[in-house]
Amino acid sequence: MENKKPLILISNDDGYQAKGICCLVEMVRHLGDIIVCAPDDARSGFACAFSATKPLTLTKRHEEPGLQVWSCNGTPVDCVKMALGELCGGRRPDLVLGGINHGDNGSVNSHYSGTMGVVMEGCMKYIPSVAYSLCDYRHDADFSPLEPYIKMMTARVLREGLPKGVCLNVNFPVMEKPQTYKGVRICRMAFGTWCSEIYKCHHPRGYDYWWMMGHYRNDEPDAEDTDNWALAHGYVAITPTHMDVTAYEAMDLLRQWDFEPSTLQP
Amino acid sequence: MENKKPLILISNDDGYQAKGICCLVEMVRHLGDIIVCAPDDARSGFACAFSATKPLTLTKRHEEPGLQVWSCNGTPVDCVKMALGELCGGRRPDLVLGGINHGDNGSVNSHYSGTMGVVMEGCMKYIPSVAYSLCDYRHDADFSPLEPYIKMMTARVLREGLPKGVCLNVNFPVMEKPQTYKGVRICRMAFGTWCSEIYKCHHPRGYDYWWMMGHYRNDEPDAEDTDNWALAHGYVAITPTHMDVTAYEAMDLLRQWDFEPSTLQP
Repeated sequence: MENKKPLILISNDDGYQAKGICCLVEMVRHLGDIIVCAPDDARSGFACAFSATKPLTLTKRHEEPGLQVWSCNGTPVDCVKMALGELCGGRRPDLVLGGINHGDNGSVNSHYSGTMGVVMEGCMKYIPSVAYSLCDYRHDADFSPLEPYIKMMTARVLREGLPKGVCLNVNFPVMEKPQTYKGVRICRMAFGTWCSEIYKCHHPRGYDYWWMMGHYRNDEPDAEDTDNWALAHGYVAITPTHMDVTAYEAMDLLRQWDFEPSTLQP
Repeated sequence: MENKKPLILISNDDGYQAKGICCLVEMVRHLGDIIVCAPDDARSGFACAFSATKPLTLTKRHEEPGLQVWSCNGTPVDCVKMALGELCGGRRPDLVLGGINHGDNGSVNSHYSGTMGVVMEGCMKYIPSVAYSLCDYRHDADFSPLEPYIKMMTARVLREGLPKGVCLNVNFPVMEKPQTYKGVRICRMAFGTWCSEIYKCHHPRGYDYWWMMGHYRNDEPDAEDTDNWALAHGYVAITPTHMDVTAYEAMDLLRQWDFEPSTLQP
């Protein structure tokens, strides 16, 4: 590979063959050398999970100048760790991209998302990292309206970097007509809840089992500064997301509490 | 069950038979009715993963007045969702507890931890939630020094609640002599990095495979306000943790960036 070009590592949670990751590669490959290392099949809902007890393998799927595509039998986070340790040839990626995810990763979905797992892992390695998601779960979703945005955002982050410990969670709404996004909004994560999450079935062998299902409820639908609001109103939502999950605003309260068991004793 | 007592839901990522969760049940069962729903085996490193495509099953393992113990074939987060939807008999738990984890969940480990997955899930359901972890990976670790702290902290959170969207990540260091903790500190999450994470092996059938391994490096060892520092110096570390991962401090910077592709066009 040409050492003067930036190195971009790309993964996802829909698998290396998904349309979303293939489109992302084509959108950004003019910006640098690309290494794809993605799960060998769908890994939706894998969050930041890694494989503590499972042996991992890599399979080279494609290679041409400036592009390598690998699949891994592990989680999205495993893919990033494997690529960093084995596939980058001693180079440190200049950028980690996740996606394009088939589906909405706004609000609390970011905690469950394997695509966000990819960029959190990049962020934990202090590499600028961006997740792209389209609010369309279909395998043949149309990603073309995203192209000018993804090209610009990727180039911008590659040039400017991101603050330490901060990655970007970028979600695109589905529009009736392509190219009609109302604009780009910098958002906070909405508070929302998954409801009726388990669906009970009866197995012909006589036992009960359950599928994870449910519907999402936006708990603050009127809050115009949230990702959910932006997406519902036709805007591209960028939620800056940090790996430091400390609730600083709660520290003073907790310091007033007495947690010392010795004070209970006479 | 007696409806006047608080309802406490307990899960973990080490499995329902692990010593840590059994000890936790004994430490807190005087505080309320207890429902345990935990993985049927170890699920370390499962983070907030849930089972999008796998049928889930429940097995009752034990029942006595005030205590039910169930195992589930899913992830730690699945266990919480299953318990909330199926096992609580229409009641809403007053508290969700994770642990006691066999191992350190400080710093970035909180992103990978299934025990933190449990309490993040509780937090996403707006239930006060606390994760307890002991920095000792051994299956026969001695949890007895934690008992007065866990009793006090659990009673306190049960009585006071926690701010919306905030859960607690409580880590205990291993002490040479029991009961000699120097005190309790309210901490922020340290910045730290897992290094040399993959270990390459050669299979007798002729292919390479890798195990996830590595060692942890504290990237700010002198920062006295961090969980890593507290644990290294003999203190119990409480890190208030929030589900809102928005990097508010980065929003102004990003609003100065131009993300509109239309401005690129002549």
